[in-house]
Amino acid sequence: MSEGRFDSVVYGSRLARAADLAGQAGLDALFVTTGPDFRYLTGSRAETFERLTVLVIPAQGRPRVVVPKMELAALRSSALGDLGVDMIDWVDGDDPYALALDGLGTINRFAVVDAMPALHSVPFTHRIGVPPELATVVLREMRMVKDADEIEALRRAGAAIDRVHARVGDWLKAGRTEREVAADIDAAIVAEGHTVADFIIVGSGPNGADPHHEVSDRVIDEGDVVVVDIGGPVEPGYNSDSTRTYVVGSAPSEVTDVYAVLQRAQQAAVDAIRPGATAGEIDAAARSVITEAGYGDYFIHRTGHGIGLSVHEEPYIVGGSDQVLREGMAFSVEPGIYFPGSWGARIEDIVVVTADGGEPMNTQPHELRSV
Amino acid sequence: MSEGRFDSVVYGSRLARAADLAGQAGLDALFVTTGPDFRYLTGSRAETFERLTVLVIPAQGRPRVVVPKMELAALRSSALGDLGVDMIDWVDGDDPYALALDGLGTINRFAVVDAMPALHSVPFTHRIGVPPELATVVLREMRMVKDADEIEALRRAGAAIDRVHARVGDWLKAGRTEREVAADIDAAIVAEGHTVADFIIVGSGPNGADPHHEVSDRVIDEGDVVVVDIGGPVEPGYNSDSTRTYVVGSAPSEVTDVYAVLQRAQQAAVDAIRPGATAGEIDAAARSVITEAGYGDYFIHRTGHGIGLSVHEEPYIVGGSDQVLREGMAFSVEPGIYFPGSWGARIEDIVVVTADGGEPMNTQPHELRSV
Repeated sequence: MSEGRFDSVVYGSRLARAADLAGQAGLDALFVTTGPDFRYLTGSRAETFERLTVLVIPAQGRPRVVVPKMELAALRSSALGDLGVDMIDWVDGDDPYALALDGLGTINRFAVVDAMPALHSVPFTHRIGVPPELATVVLREMRMVKDADEIEALRRAGAAIDRVHARVGDWLKAGRTEREVAADIDAAIVAEGHTVADFIIVGSGPNGADPHHEVSDRVIDEGDVVVVDIGGPVEPGYNSDSTRTYVVGSAPSEVTDVYAVLQRAQQAAVDAIRPGATAGEIDAAARSVITEAGYGDYFIHRTGHGIGLSVHEEPYIVGGSDQVLREGMAFSVEPGIYFPGSWGARIEDIVVVTADGGEPMNTQPHELRSV
Repeated sequence: MSEGRFDSVVYGSRLARAADLAGQAGLDALFVTTGPDFRYLTGSRAETFERLTVLVIPAQGRPRVVVPKMELAALRSSALGDLGVDMIDWVDGDDPYALALDGLGTINRFAVVDAMPALHSVPFTHRIGVPPELATVVLREMRMVKDADEIEALRRAGAAIDRVHARVGDWLKAGRTEREVAADIDAAIVAEGHTVADFIIVGSGPNGADPHHEVSDRVIDEGDVVVVDIGGPVEPGYNSDSTRTYVVGSAPSEVTDVYAVLQRAQQAAVDAIRPGATAGEIDAAARSVITEAGYGDYFIHRTGHGIGLSVHEEPYIVGGSDQVLREGMAFSVEPGIYFPGSWGARIEDIVVVTADGGEPMNTQPHELRSV
């Protein structure tokens, strides 16, 4: 494995399969700008915005990449260099859209990646003359099911974030602010092997009741329940994402009673995982436990999301989804119960679907942890 | 000013003007997902990806915002709350695109922001039945010309990054790696008042010849020429971006000769700035100095880019551009000369167009600085 990517042969297979699937879907070409799909297909971490970098994968014929001249050297060190993919460079003032389309022939149907900004999808749309479709129809089939090397990367990411959770008690103390605690966690996320800390939620007391709270200057108090949701990428780009709920000192029985329900709900969802189950069934497994205990109105989000090169990707574990689980899929199982203005709790593990169930990538205890 | 934004009245005016300009451009509505345009129009730092948050600004009628229920509380504290903009919240499983379009009437022409990912622009396109245009046609007219408060924010950002450059000599030493130097710079960027370090380039020796090199584990050597290009946002979100070139010890005359050309080129471009000049003329002012000295082939990028809530935005200072400069525009002036495999140099200041010329936001000396 080169730093930051798998062997080039992996990307060669992915490019060929993407072209095949595009053809089967009746698409003439896929247009892939930088981001997680680009990294999945090329191994390149390139991130460009206003200057177009685009990988064009025709259903028939050779792929090509159009890239700003300044980015060419970096792209040559991606798998695209080893694979001999045509690289067409351009400089400020050139028309990169014309270069991307030159010689492709008539395009009746094309698809663009989810992440392509309108800055690029609009010019392609106007030049090609038909609106794009989403390349997700092809790429999610590929990215959703992880191979052994990808699962190994998720396992390393899970172990790294588990080592951080194991040390949260060193930093989470009454009298400190959420922001101070988060700074220590940030350093530990990197020290434990992540490229960067991608997100850090330290939601103490009432802030724990907002699932998307990040951090604040709130001073943590004795008796606070604190939601800590953290993660980031490890090379070659696969993400960790794990939540544990802590209590500073000891929790009153109304907290431990609710928390016991949450713990059962999370376990019920993990237990329901197997090839052939649907994403909707996993969501229902967690939700029914919480609803039956009378807290259904306080579980205000889906049960989970797929994870890999993106922190959030397919499959989404959401009510009503008939997405069938397959071996190798990886997603979070993270029910929560939130009492606005008061407190909240969440438990989150990443789980990979195996032949006979689900394998958690996170193994830190699920109990409400007193610090 | 609330933390992170201007008074709500500022955003009320911007929303009204955006609707007016949309109408004048023949557009029925603008669709604004999160990112710099959203922050410009609402004061909100919200960043959502797969869950749709969209501000809809019809040319006629009231704006509305569709937002995940989990993000509603945060959005209420933006200017949209004070302004009484209709907020329509949704939960996982709802159809947020339908909510965004409900009751809008027939849309013949609509525009989306540059940053809108295809994940959202494609569903809007298919439901509305016509391809989108870019909202930039409206928003760049607004965002390109900064008001007094925005210029004051850019001035604070410039002063903050200048204080970091003033201390680079403390960290940039032979025997250290680029990465080690960058870590010190990262901490200083935050300590000097930025929200975060958005980018750090430490390009030593041959790495300085790659304008988009970031950092590496290369050990800096005595005699190395080192390009340091750094910046980040200060509240309420306006960015710094400044480059200085350093030499470890002393530079040979072939370096100082080339550097003198670069310094003249950068100054020529700044001196050419005035209302009524074109962006292309500013590029030409820098480029002609470098070309006449025989180094034209080694200046491989545009001379600059607009800056504000985005690090790169309109106006782009690129050859051939007939974009006319107006008072209040802000952009980088950053010519560079790059000898592949050997060394490179760049000088970059942010400059604001004033009634009678250009006012640099960066005031650190331009000389090749020996450390």
